[in-house]
Order: sequence, then structure tokens, then C-alpha cells
Amino acid sequence: MKKFLDENFMLQNETAVKLYHDYAKDMPIIDYHCHLSPKEIAEDKKYKNITEIWLGGDHYKWRVMRSFGITEDFITGDQDDYLKFKAFAKAVPFTIGNPMYHWTHLELQRYFGIDTLLSEETADEIWEKCNTLLNQDDFSARQLITRSKVDVICTTDDPIDDLEYHKQLAADDSFATKVYPTYRPDKSFNIANETFIPWIKSLEEAVGYTVDSIQKLLKALEERIDYFHEVGCRLSDHALDTIEYHTPYIEGTTNIDYARANQVYKKGLVGDVLTEEEVAIHKGLVLNFLGKAYAKRGWTMQIHIGALRNNNRRMHKAIGPDTGFDSVHDSTFAPALSALLNDLDTTDELPKTILYVLNPRDNYVIGTMIGNFQGGGTKGKIQFGSGWWFCDQKEGMQDQMSALANLGLLSAFVGMLTDSRSFLSYTRHEYFRRILCNYLGTLVEDGEYPNDEKFLGQIVQDISYNNAKAYFGL
Amino acid sequence: MKKFLDENFMLQNETAVKLYHDYAKDMPIIDYHCHLSPKEIAEDKKYKNITEIWLGGDHYKWRVMRSFGITEDFITGDQDDYLKFKAFAKAVPFTIGNPMYHWTHLELQRYFGIDTLLSEETADEIWEKCNTLLNQDDFSARQLITRSKVDVICTTDDPIDDLEYHKQLAADDSFATKVYPTYRPDKSFNIANETFIPWIKSLEEAVGYTVDSIQKLLKALEERIDYFHEVGCRLSDHALDTIEYHTPYIEGTTNIDYARANQVYKKGLVGDVLTEEEVAIHKGLVLNFLGKAYAKRGWTMQIHIGALRNNNRRMHKAIGPDTGFDSVHDSTFAPALSALLNDLDTTDELPKTILYVLNPRDNYVIGTMIGNFQGGGTKGKIQFGSGWWFCDQKEGMQDQMSALANLGLLSAFVGMLTDSRSFLSYTRHEYFRRILCNYLGTLVEDGEYPNDEKFLGQIVQDISYNNAKAYFGL
Amino acid sequence: MKKFLDENFMLQNETAVKLYHDYAKDMPIIDYHCHLSPKEIAEDKKYKNITEIWLGGDHYKWRVMRSFGITEDFITGDQDDYLKFKAFAKAVPFTIGNPMYHWTHLELQRYFGIDTLLSEETADEIWEKCNTLLNQDDFSARQLITRSKVDVICTTDDPIDDLEYHKQLAADDSFATKVYPTYRPDKSFNIANETFIPWIKSLEEAVGYTVDSIQKLLKALEERIDYFHEVGCRLSDHALDTIEYHTPYIEGTTNIDYARANQVYKKGLVGDVLTEEEVAIHKGLVLNFLGKAYAKRGWTMQIHIGALRNNNRRMHKAIGPDTGFDSVHDSTFAPALSALLNDLDTTDELPKTILYVLNPRDNYVIGTMIGNFQGGGTKGKIQFGSGWWFCDQKEGMQDQMSALANLGLLSAFVGMLTDSRSFLSYTRHEYFRRILCNYLGTLVEDGEYPNDEKFLGQIVQDISYNNAKAYFGL
Repeated sequence: MKKFLDENFMLQNETAVKLYHDYAKDMPIIDYHCHLSPKEIAEDKKYKNITEIWLGGDHYKWRVMRSFGITEDFITGDQDDYLKFKAFAKAVPFTIGNPMYHWTHLELQRYFGIDTLLSEETADEIWEKCNTLLNQDDFSARQLITRSKVDVICTTDDPIDDLEYHKQLAADDSFATKVYPTYRPDKSFNIANETFIPWIKSLEEAVGYTVDSIQKLLKALEERIDYFHEVGCRLSDHALDTIEYHTPYIEGTTNIDYARANQVYKKGLVGDVLTEEEVAIHKGLVLNFLGKAYAKRGWTMQIHIGALRNNNRRMHKAIGPDTGFDSVHDSTFAPALSALLNDLDTTDELPKTILYVLNPRDNYVIGTMIGNFQGGGTKGKIQFGSGWWFCDQKEGMQDQMSALANLGLLSAFVGMLTDSRSFLSYTRHEYFRRILCNYLGTLVEDGEYPNDEKFLGQIVQDISYNNAKAYFGL
Repeated sequence: MKKFLDENFMLQNETAVKLYHDYAKDMPIIDYHCHLSPKEIAEDKKYKNITEIWLGGDHYKWRVMRSFGITEDFITGDQDDYLKFKAFAKAVPFTIGNPMYHWTHLELQRYFGIDTLLSEETADEIWEKCNTLLNQDDFSARQLITRSKVDVICTTDDPIDDLEYHKQLAADDSFATKVYPTYRPDKSFNIANETFIPWIKSLEEAVGYTVDSIQKLLKALEERIDYFHEVGCRLSDHALDTIEYHTPYIEGTTNIDYARANQVYKKGLVGDVLTEEEVAIHKGLVLNFLGKAYAKRGWTMQIHIGALRNNNRRMHKAIGPDTGFDSVHDSTFAPALSALLNDLDTTDELPKTILYVLNPRDNYVIGTMIGNFQGGGTKGKIQFGSGWWFCDQKEGMQDQMSALANLGLLSAFVGMLTDSRSFLSYTRHEYFRRILCNYLGTLVEDGEYPNDEKFLGQIVQDISYNNAKAYFGL
Repeated sequence: MKKFLDENFMLQNETAVKLYHDYAKDMPIIDYHCHLSPKEIAEDKKYKNITEIWLGGDHYKWRVMRSFGITEDFITGDQDDYLKFKAFAKAVPFTIGNPMYHWTHLELQRYFGIDTLLSEETADEIWEKCNTLLNQDDFSARQLITRSKVDVICTTDDPIDDLEYHKQLAADDSFATKVYPTYRPDKSFNIANETFIPWIKSLEEAVGYTVDSIQKLLKALEERIDYFHEVGCRLSDHALDTIEYHTPYIEGTTNIDYARANQVYKKGLVGDVLTEEEVAIHKGLVLNFLGKAYAKRGWTMQIHIGALRNNNRRMHKAIGPDTGFDSVHDSTFAPALSALLNDLDTTDELPKTILYVLNPRDNYVIGTMIGNFQGGGTKGKIQFGSGWWFCDQKEGMQDQMSALANLGLLSAFVGMLTDSRSFLSYTRHEYFRRILCNYLGTLVEDGEYPNDEKFLGQIVQDISYNNAKAYFGL
């Protein structure tokens, strides 16, 4: 029997152990997609207690607590921090089989040096110890990043953002980690959402002119791309929960049909109800334009597919979005995704692209879709993104790796990202690397790949760091 | 090599062995969903031979026999019981990898004390031995239940049922197992089915008045709920093969749109052809009403999703429904299911709910959907039901457990049910518990959870019995 | 640690080893579905070098090369054969976890006796050795077939094909392997494709009369079926990427609605744009007719479901179809597939049928769909086809076997086929048999099936050869 969370955690054979400890463990981190606050990094935020840093914004933990029967006042309500922590601690031992159990103890062990298992009984001891440490200097946002050996962080930012904190950080020699923005223009193409009209107004302020036609919208978006580029941005990100796509091309050509798109855009600007087709026409044109703009600048386009959001109206009213009421969608999207990529590729303007999928039943769609658009001399130009959100756990990561390996080239994979709002989440890279080493080690132990340690070590280091370094050009 | 079906069947490590034998094995059973006949229990039915009890109504066995090339006369036709048994026996060794092989031998071993493997060669010996035993007293319906340590049985009943046998059983002190009805109102909302008009007539007889408006239908349904409640019913069940759902609320409110629903209802009553939207309007309103009625009484709402039924017209004509010609659907349903639950939750009238899904590709949809509606202080209020029908086997159960553990709280799971028409199916609880213990034991052996035997044993006993006891309030 | 590709490759326990070596290994092969050229067999083609035989038409290898960042000139372009081979060799070590790594080395070892692992470093040595051998007599098309112990090959052929080479081969006593055509009438039912009108013209030439009505189309198709039958054909094949099906029956009857179908057919003949419903009407009638014609002659109907083809317009223009730009679809199809089979079964004219599915998320749909139409005394009449195309690898095959075993009868399975364009692909049968033996061996070792070696050996030999022999009647 293996001991819980010992040095060979998740490593089930000798080859896996060797690959992890001798090759993976010490590689630095490129965290190319997360939701950290650049302000908190710039200001080197400190935390008053473990509840603030751990439970403050973590909807994963909130979902666990709700499932366990804890009432909302101890979760997002006004109970005090100590009692909230205690409530969470009580639930933790019951998370057997859930990544929460591993994340919790990895973070306690790696950042706080705590081996004690968290439970109702140990809550007080751990509360005291964590809070004492959090008040020390090496528990500030920057210190946590530095201790985690993070080379690069890419935050997630609205095109209208002034990137003030990114600029501050770039100018600050005292902090070695590079912090770049990521261009996330969802509000520009979600024309039927409530956010559309106010966002266009904010965009107008950012660019200094009226955005009253689709051409002006594209011009403004491109100006913001250039602005982001100057601050070091090389990635974009797009949530396409479902994929509504209508080609922007006039049939049989690659000429853009601006006339039709402007009809839609103008309806959107005054809040008229739009048909599904009209929404797809707007999205199609904007995404097509953006893709080409990214390609021109060597950027990478990330697409996150398959979330079903805001399922709970009552709680949405009470505490807003991103509070743990999202889940996995089951829509079909393969032809639409293919058309989106194909339209860009047809003029050879498809950028490097990462496709993330939330429903693992779609792993074979994505694992084979990427193969349709590889080429042009870039290794792994189109990537199958690592297990995301609900799939960011052992089973989810293994299934993604296995699908990618069987259907494409795992060795060209750009690997892990935290997608996190917390400065304690870098242990997810450790977790990923252990699972990766175990997967490769198992192939070798089972005689499915030769035992060439040096070469295997190279593959591990590539997926842990080198591939991302070369791919993103950060 | 492990011996087939020895005492450690399905238990692949020491921790699994200990958890099963010391914690799971002796727990009683709450069989909260099955299709047993309350009449047969009340009358304490006896069986003339093994063919009657085993092959009489078991479409799983019929499918195996058809696949093996046995002609229908030996399956549901008029060949004699001995020859039917012999035909089945011949097929059994060829069911390698199928749960039929395990169920068959578990039932022979546990109920009849037969270790001999069933095959064409051993058929005669086993035929004799089983039939001799079946003629003894401890092989009556009640004795089989008692020997299986079943605390509670919940049968599946039409709202118009008079529950005569349930009442008889409640009044009979000689039988310790509690037998409760389950409210299954499918015919009330399947407005486009042939069964609708005749069922409404039966309902009118049951309630004693004309049901000529949607309001009267709801009133009648609620009266029957109260009637069931008095007889001890605390669960309902609904087959939503696909989910057609239209919100009953007038937009922007939680007021019910009865006018529209009555237009549809009146068309349904005279057999007019209904559009898909009209079907969804009727279903939506009835399900919304029922859900609130269940919530008010502390009932649990079960929803079975994803069957594709009656695929074989020729055999349906010959031998009717539920004879082995159903299969797994691939429809998409996440937004509709979300809307159904959300509409109930929005006024905080969502009852405890169990969602079963027949296509395992939807495990991540269900495993995350339940998380959208947890809360209010009930542990595991929304449940992901155990592997069902075609998924009621090792792979299906493991996948459900793993998805539930990774995406929610396995420890809050209400566990197994037989869903069976046979008094010999209680071994499915044993089978489930072995798979559960093996899953948890493997986590521990692999170092993914600490080896805290007492706590693990508690979780095992909770999932085997305690959670269901607390959850259903039976 | 197991050595890579030793004699017990893929065999993880003693039972698996015994089953493979003592029962599976020496069974001959019935390759009942492939895309070999009958002309190349008839002419006993020889190959000038390893690039021609390996890289000439293998889009699997091309996809690997593109993903690795190799430019198209080294893949399908005009670089010379040596440099193309070298480029492929460089990519091979990076295919860890991909079936390409196994196929490559299995083929090198089995056909060329080469144990050296292919890489950039060993490319020259292997290039020399392979080319030397390819110039020897036992590396001709026929010798490769004979050395692989292939009893029967079924190629894939257009109904208008004159089958000249099949006839030549039938008349040639010097070659023992039987080579039969397979009837693949896709162009007859894909009425909205560009290929439709020219294909009808070719059909007219083949049958010698004008095909200007749906009745004449059916007559012509049946004549070609008879022609194929005379040359030994007993299988048909159909790519139904998505399933558009409209019943051909007049409602409530089994009478065919020719009038409606003729309206559609005549629009198709002049190239009018057809609605989705019209396409489904044409497909429905043609498939219904063909199914009955197959049933009458004891043929087997193969249906391949779920490809999303020709995703890359730019490359399609440059190098045409079937060049590595296809992927996995996610359309839903269960009700349409059910209706297609049900309509045939309703008059008891459903032929033996094999259903292949490209998206493994649909394994449970297919694994249970086959059970709806079993019967009539044929063992495994409806088959769940082996892991296909992207699923033709360890994970894909295991998942198909496990689904088939759990939901149907694995023991009645007709087993493996190459689906290949290469004379070196027979090692896929070896690969399949190893995975099969490992699956069965693991069940036995884990105590899930008794250790009855002789009976297990029988099942292995049945799935490897005997079932196909009995099923196809070739």
C-alpha cells in the first residue's frame, strides 16, 4: 500500500518515479492561462487568513460544501472566516475520490509544510498555523509565485482593459516572473447578451471614436490587439459554450459579406431581438476577423467549448455569476467548429489554436479535429487543451492525454495551465506532471514503449515546459 | 489468479477485502426502486420451477438468448420450461464479460447453494436441485426477501392504483420488511401517447369526477399523491426518455400559464395531433406541478433519462413492450433538464431529486448538473443515480462512481437499488457493494486517500445503507 | 518491466499469454473488409522501396508527420522517397502512445525481421535493409498475403465495377487466397453529392439502359448485386456519416411510396437543390431496397457511422479526398438508425448487419441497438463492428470489446478486419488478437470468469476466425 501523498504520490511504478523526480519536478512553470488578478500581483497582496486565500473565490470548494449540506451562510454568506474554514474542514474527509482532497493537501504540504490531514478535528491547529504563515513575507502573492518557479503568467483580460498593472509589473525589475495579458473578446461577439451594448460603449471610450458599424468594431478590436501586443500579449481566449457559426464569406469566395453583418450589428446595437442565425452571422464574422489578426501576429487562439452556465436563477440573483452554478453541456458542435477553423485555414490564416472541451465525451472529436489543420511546419500547431475545469482531475487529465496520444502527438503537447484565481494553485502543475509521468511510465513498464530514459525524460520536460516555451514565443 | 466467485469476488486488494467483509456485507438493504409485484409479496408467491422465477419476465436473459441464436419459441414462446432452461443454460458460458454470467452464478450460489457452473452439461443437475428447493418454504417471495435482509422495498405504481396489496402488507405483522408504493405518473404527462385518453378515464374513476381541464388534472394528481402518502409512499419516478420541457411560467414571473396549457390539454383529450412544443408545454406544466407537490411533502423525485424504447415493431406486435427491444438513446438534454430543475428551484420548491442516465457518455453532464442545485442544508440533495439498466454492471457502476466522486460527493451517495422484477435480484446489492469497496480500496492502496479504516468503513456503510435511510425518510 | 514488442507484447498475464500463443496466433485470417487494390493482387505488385509501400497512401502516417511539423513537400509532395522516409523516421520516436509506434515496429519485425527501433539515427540502415528485401520475391503483394495466412480478402468496390481482377484471381489456381468484391453503393444514395449525376451515367453504361426513374435505379442496383454475387460477393458496405433516413413506407403499411421518391429522384437527376427531407427520402428508399436484396441473398450489410469528412478545403483542392483531413463526428443518430433497421425487420427482411461507429461515445448506443434486432436463430446476427479508423488502437478496441461484452455477446463477435490499403497491415489482426487475449485473460486472472482453458481457447479461436467463417459464408 502506498502512503497518501508521499513523495511518489500518483507514481505507480519505477519508471514513473524516475521520470518525475529526475526530469519533471524541477522544471519551471509557464502558466499560460489563468484568472489571477494582475492588480494583486502588482500590489503584492497579502492575505489575512486561510479563508480569504482559499475560500474567498473558489467555487470548486463552494460546490463541495453545498453538496455536503452546509448552508450558504457558511459558504458565501456572512458567517465569520473561522467558522467558514471549520465548515469546509468538516467536509474535506468526505471528498474521497474528488480532486479537492488532493488539491487541499498538496497546497497545505507544499506551501505551508503541513502534513496533518484536514478535518473537523484538525481544523483549529491548521487554522492557526496557516494564518501565522500567511502573515509572513514569503506568503505574499509574488512570493508564492516565485516559490513556485513560475517563469510566465498569462492573465485573462478584456480588450478594453488599460493593462495598467501589466505595465507596472513589466517596469518592475524586482519581480522576475513575466506577467502578460490575454485578449478575451467574448463580449464583442456575444451580440445577444445584455453585456453587449454597455461593452460597446466602453470600447468606444477606450478607442476614442464611435463604433457604429461592423467595420469600426473590427478596427477597434484590432487596435486593442495591437495595444495588448505591445504589452507582451501573445494569447487570446474565447468561451464558445456552444458553437454558433455562420461563415462570413460570400459563397464560393473568401470575400467578407459586410452588408449582412452590418444589418445584424445595427440591430444588436439598439437591442433588437436577434435570430439564432443572426447571432451566428455576427459571431462568425468577428471570430474570422480575430483569427486572422492573431495569425498575422503569431498569437495563439484559445477556444473553450462546452460549458452550460448560470443554471441556478435563484442563486444567480443572490450572488451573481461564477459562483458554482455552471455545469457540462452536451451540445453537438463538430461541423461548426470545423467550419470556423476551415474558413481561416482556407486563406492560410489559421493561427496556432488550442481547443479545450468540457465534456470528455467529446475527446475524440477534438483529438481528431486538430489533425485536420496541422501542418505548415509548426509542431503541434493545433493543440488539444489539457483537461479543463471539471476535467481538471486525474481521470479527466488521463483521458485527455490518452486521447491525444492515440489520435495525435502527445509529445508535442504544450501541457498544463492552472486556469485558477488562486496563488496556491501551482501545485496543479505538479499534479499534472505526476499524472503525465505515470502515464508514460506505465506505457514503458507494460512494454508498449522502449525504456529509453533519456528520450522519455526529454518528452516529459518538453510537455512540462519546453513545448510551451517554443510554442507561445513568450 | 483469483478463483471465480470466491469470497473475495471483485475485491482486488486487502483494503477492499476488509471494507467489504467487515463493513459492507452485513448491512441491510433499502431497495428504494424496483418493479416487484406487491400482489406476489402479499400472496407470498411460490414458484413451480427455476424457469418461472428466472426466465419468466427477464428481458436481460431473453436478449442474451436471442444474441446466441436461440429461436423465440425457446425464449418467450411455447416450448416447455425444461427446454427453455436448457437453452438458456447452453448460452450461459458464452456470456463471458457480461453481467449475466455473474448474476446467474451469484444467484445460484447465494439462494440455492449451488457452486456448479451452469452450462448445457450441468443444466439437468441444476434444474433438479433448484426446483426441489423452490418447492420448500424458504423460497417463497417473502422468504427470499427476508433472507436477503431487506428493510424496505419501494415498488413502482400507477397513480390510479388502489394500493390494496400495500395496505394488506402494512397490516400484516408477520412480515417485517416494509413495502411502500412509488408514484409513477408517466401516463399523465405523455399526452401524445395512445395511453393518454384511456388513462384519464381511469383517473376519473379513481377520483370520482370529470378531469376536463388541466387544473382538474393537477387536482386529481395531488389527491392521488396524498393517497399514496398515507400508504407510506415517499418517492416518485418518471421516465423522461428524452426531455421535452417548456417552462410553465409566464415570462419574467413564476405565475403559471394555465390558459395555454388548457388549450393543449383539451386537444390531447380529444386525440388531436399535437406539436412537439405542445407536448412540451403539457409535460412542463405537469412536471413543474408534481415537483412542487413532492417538495412540499418531503418526497424524492426520480428521473430516468435516455432510453430509446420499442425499437422492434414486429416483436412489439407479437409479444408487447418491455420484452427486450429497448436500447440506449443519444439525444441531448442538458439545457432542458437544467430548465426543469431551475424552474422548481427558483421558488425554492425543488424536491430531493435522483437523476439516472442510461447513456454513460452523459455521466459528466449529470455529475455536474447535480452540483447546480445542491444546498439548503440537505446532504446530497440532488443525487446522481447508480448505473441503470444497461449500465447496471461493473464497468457502468465504476464509471458512475468515478464520475460522481470526481464531480461531486460519492460519500453522500444513496447507493444501489435493484430496479428488478425478480425476487432473486438482491445479489445486485452485494455486487454493487463489492465494486464500491474495490473502488475505495484501490484509492487507498494507490495512496490517493489515507488508510483510515474506521472512516472508510463508515463511508461504505453510509453508501450501502445509512445515506438512503436518512435521505428518503422511510 | 516488460521489454518492448517481445513475444508477449500486449499480454499482461499468464492466461493471456497462453490464450494468445496456444490458440490465437496460428489461426488464419478472414479479412472481410479492406481497401486493397484487386489489380495489385492480380498483377502481384512489387514495391521499389519502403516509402512506396509504407508512405505512398497512408494518411495515418501523413497526419503524424503534419502534427510533428514536417512540411507537406516531404509528405505528399515531390521530395524524393529517401528524404520522405527519413522525415517519417524522425517523427516515429515521438509517437509514444500512438498506434503508429506499434504498427511501425510490428511491420518491421514481422515482415522484414528488423528489431531495430526506427528513428532518424537508424533510418539509413532500415531504408537499406527494407529495400533490399522488397526486391526479393517474397515481398510481392501475393507473397505478403500468403505469408500472413490470409484465407479470404474482401475488397471494396463500386457497383459499376466490372470486377475483372476478381475474376482473374478466381480463375488463377496459383494463388490460394480467395479475393471477393464488396458492394459499396454509396454513390447511388448520396443524391445531393456532386458525384450523383455522373455516377448514374456510369451505371447506365454498366447496365445498358436509361436509369430515369427510381424503379429503374433499383432494378439496376439489383442487377449489379446479382453480378457481384456471381463473382463471390457476400458483403456490402455503406458510409452513413450521419444518418438521414425517411421511411419509404406509406403510413401504417409496408407499401413503398414510389411516387414521392420519384419526385425526389427526378430533381436529383437534373441537379436541383434538395431539402434535407428529400435527401432522406431518397436514401431511405434505396437503403430499404438494398437491405432486402441483401437479406434475400444471405449477404451481410456493413454500415460505417460517424465520420466528418473533408474538413480542410485548402488541402482538398491541393491533393483531393482521403488524404488525412477527416475526423470524428458528433451527430446524434439513434432513432434514425433504429428506424432504418426496424423498417427492414418489420417484414423480416433485415439482413445480417455490422454496425461500426467512429465516435466511441456512441459505443453504448450501438452495443444495445444490436440487441433490438437479434434473433431468428442466427448467432450474433447483428454485430457491433470492431474499433474502426481512429478507434483502431488499443484503447479503441478494448472499449469496443468491453461494451460488446457487457451489452451483448462478445463470444459471437466476428472480430477483426484491416480496413487497410496496405499489404503490410495484417499485423493488425495480430494486434487485435493480443488485445483480445489480454482482455479475456484479465477477466480470468481477476476471478471474473472461470479458468477453463479449453473453452476460453475456443472463444478466442471463434472470434479470431471461426465466427467470421460461419457468419459470412465465404
